Amino acid sequence: MIAASIPSKVTVGGHAVRLARTATLYHAPAHINGLRLVCAAAQSHAAPRYFSTTSRTQLRDFFPKRETVHIQTTPAAWPHHGYTMEEMKAVVPAHRKPEGLVDWAAWKVVRMARFWMDLATGMQRSQQVDKKNPTTAVAAEKPLTEAQWLIRFVFLESIAGVPGMVGGMLRHLNSLRRMKRDNGWIETLLEESYNERMHLLTFMKMCEPGWFMKTMIIIAQGVFFNAMFATYLVAPKVTHRFVGYLEEEAVHTYTRAIKEIEDGSLPKWSDPDFQIPDIAVQYWKMPEGHRTMKDLIMYIRADEAVHRGVNHTLSNLNQNEDPNPFVSDFKDRETPKPALKSAGYERSEVI
Amino acid sequence: MIAASIPSKVTVGGHAVRLARTATLYHAPAHINGLRLVCAAAQSHAAPRYFSTTSRTQLRDFFPKRETVHIQTTPAAWPHHGYTMEEMKAVVPAHRKPEGLVDWAAWKVVRMARFWMDLATGMQRSQQVDKKNPTTAVAAEKPLTEAQWLIRFVFLESIAGVPGMVGGMLRHLNSLRRMKRDNGWIETLLEESYNERMHLLTFMKMCEPGWFMKTMIIIAQGVFFNAMFATYLVAPKVTHRFVGYLEEEAVHTYTRAIKEIEDGSLPKWSDPDFQIPDIAVQYWKMPEGHRTMKDLIMYIRADEAVHRGVNHTLSNLNQNEDPNPFVSDFKDRETPKPALKSAGYERSEVI
Ligand SMILES: [Fe+2]
Ligand SMILES: [Fe+2]
Ligand SMILES: [Fe+2]
Ligand SMILES: [Fe+2]
Repeated sequence: MIAASIPSKVTVGGHAVRLARTATLYHAPAHINGLRLVCAAAQSHAAPRYFSTTSRTQLRDFFPKRETVHIQTTPAAWPHHGYTMEEMKAVVPAHRKPEGLVDWAAWKVVRMARFWMDLATGMQRSQQVDKKNPTTAVAAEKPLTEAQWLIRFVFLESIAGVPGMVGGMLRHLNSLRRMKRDNGWIETLLEESYNERMHLLTFMKMCEPGWFMKTMIIIAQGVFFNAMFATYLVAPKVTHRFVGYLEEEAVHTYTRAIKEIEDGSLPKWSDPDFQIPDIAVQYWKMPEGHRTMKDLIMYIRADEAVHRGVNHTLSNLNQNEDPNPFVSDFKDRETPKPALKSAGYERSEVI
Repeated sequence: MIAASIPSKVTVGGHAVRLARTATLYHAPAHINGLRLVCAAAQSHAAPRYFSTTSRTQLRDFFPKRETVHIQTTPAAWPHHGYTMEEMKAVVPAHRKPEGLVDWAAWKVVRMARFWMDLATGMQRSQQVDKKNPTTAVAAEKPLTEAQWLIRFVFLESIAGVPGMVGGMLRHLNSLRRMKRDNGWIETLLEESYNERMHLLTFMKMCEPGWFMKTMIIIAQGVFFNAMFATYLVAPKVTHRFVGYLEEEAVHTYTRAIKEIEDGSLPKWSDPDFQIPDIAVQYWKMPEGHRTMKDLIMYIRADEAVHRGVNHTLSNLNQNEDPNPFVSDFKDRETPKPALKSAGYERSEVI
C-alpha cells in the first residue's frame, strides 16, 4: 500500500535510481532511490501490519533478545537523565547566525549534506519546506511518507553517532599524551555518541534497510569518520560549530515529523495499535500513556536540542582550558540547560 | 639526595643515556635514563619536601584548579563504584596460562614491553624479581626508589588508557555501521580508559616528567594507538587477551610497590606528612584515616585487577553476540566480580 504513495520516478541522476529500477523497484516492499526498507507499521502481537505487503517473517528482528543460560538482561549502562513534558514541548527549531567565515563554511557544509539527504529521501518539490528558512520552516505542501521519514532518520542517526566519539577519543588521547586534565568534556561527548546510537537502534527496531542502503551507510561512515578525525584534530572549535549546525537540522527534521503526525498525515504512526519498541520505552523510561510514536520523537528531538546547545556552547569556549559547564557546579546559578538554548551559551555566560 | 641512590651509569645503549648525560644528568633533580622527574615527596602546606633539592616553584602544578567567574567545581562525571578494604586486600598477582599460540604470542609481546619498562626504569640486576615467576614474584634483593616507581607508574598509565578507548570506539562504530546492538561492552571499555586516565592524572599531581620523558610518552602513544587500532579491528579476542596480560603486569607492579612500602623501603611515602592528591581522595572517595600512599596504590591495584578480570573474560566470549556479563543482571547469580577472578571467567560460567 505504501509503495503506491512513494514516487516511482524520482529525478535523481545516476546510480541510486538505476539500482532502484533494476534491483528492487518492482518487487520490494518500500523503496526510495534504491533505499529498500522493510518496515513494521504496527507491531501488536495479535495482528502485525506493515508498510508493505511483505510477510511478517521477512522483517527479521535485527537484534533479538539473546537467550543465554545465565544472563537475564543487560540494561543501558549510562541511564538517560530524562525530560519533563514541558521541556520537550518547549524545543523549537532555530538557527544560530554564522559569525565569520569559518562558521559560515561549517554551515554551508551542513546545508550541502541536507541537500543530499533530501535527495536520498526522494523528496519531491512539493514536499520541500520554505527554502528561505530551511532550518526553521516546517510547513510543506505535501507531507513525507512514513517510509521516507524512516530512511531519513536511520541515515541521519547512523552518522550522528560519529562526531561525539571522535571528539571524546581525541580529547582522551590528548589528555594522556600531554598529561593534562580534560575538565569534563570527554564524558559529555562520549555520552552524546551513545545517545545517538540509541536513536539508531530504536529506529532499527522499526525497519530493516536493504543492502544498498546498508552499503551507503558503511561508505558514509568511512568518509565521515575520517573527515571528523582530521577536522577535530586541527580545529575542534569549528567541528563543534559544525555539529551544532547538524543538530539544528536534526531538531528541524524531528519537529516537522511531529507536526505531520499532529496533522494526521502519517496515519500508520497515529494508529492506536502502533507500538514503539521496548528498547525505547526502557531507555527513556517513557511513562505509560505516553508511548506513542509522537512521544518517542519528542524525546529524540529533545536529545537533539541538547546536542545543539552543547556543541554550539563548546565551540564558544577555550578548548584547552575551560571546564565543561554542563557537568560543573556553579557558584551563582543552576547548571546550564542546553536544550532550550538553541544558539548555545556565550563563553562569558558560563565561564 | 635521591639522585645519589639512582644509578648514574645505566647500561642502555644509545639515545636515552646520551641525552641523560648531556642534557640533564648533572643538574636535574631526579633522573633515570634521561627520564627527568621533579617529584613532590611531601606536600604538606607548611613545609613541602621534595625528592630533590629543587625549590618548590620548580614543581609547576600541572593542572591547577582554574579560577573562573561562574564555575565552582567540575566533578568526575563517571563516579567510581568503590571497593571495600577486604576486596582490595584480596587482590593478588596472578598469571593466566596462555592457551594456544595466539595467547602465547600476546603474552610474549607483554613480556617484551616489561623488559623495556624495566630498562627505562633503570632497574639494576639486584632490583629484579625472580625471573621464573615474573608476574607473581614480588620480592627483590633491593627495592626501587620512589622516583623509579613514579617513572614506571606514569609511563604505564599513559599507555594504559589507550586500549579501552580504541576498543570502545571500534565497537561503537561497528554498532552504528552494522546497525547491531552492542550489548553493553562499549561503556565498560570506555570507563576502563577513563579510570586509567584518572590513575595518570593522580600521579601527575606528584611529579613532573622532563621533556625527554614527555617526548617518549608521545611517541609511545602514537605507536601503541595505531597498533591497538589495527589489532582490535582484525582480532579483538587477541587484543583483550593482550590487555589481560598487560593488566597482570600492572597488578604485579603495584603489589610490589605496596610490599616495599610495607617493608619500610620507601620512606618518603611512609612519611606521615606525605599527602596524596585531592583528585584521588575525591575520585575514589577515600575515607578519612585511609589516605596514605599505600591506600592510594591499593585502590589503583584493585582497579587494575578489575581490568585484568574483565579483559581475560571478554577474550573468552563471542565478540559479536555475547552480552557483557559485568553490566548484566543474572537469572541465577550475582553479577560477576572481576577483581578476584584473575584469569577471567570462562564463557560457560557467565553466558
Ligand atoms: Fe539523534
Ligand atoms: Fe543529534
Ligand atoms: Fe592504571
Ligand atoms: Fe590497567
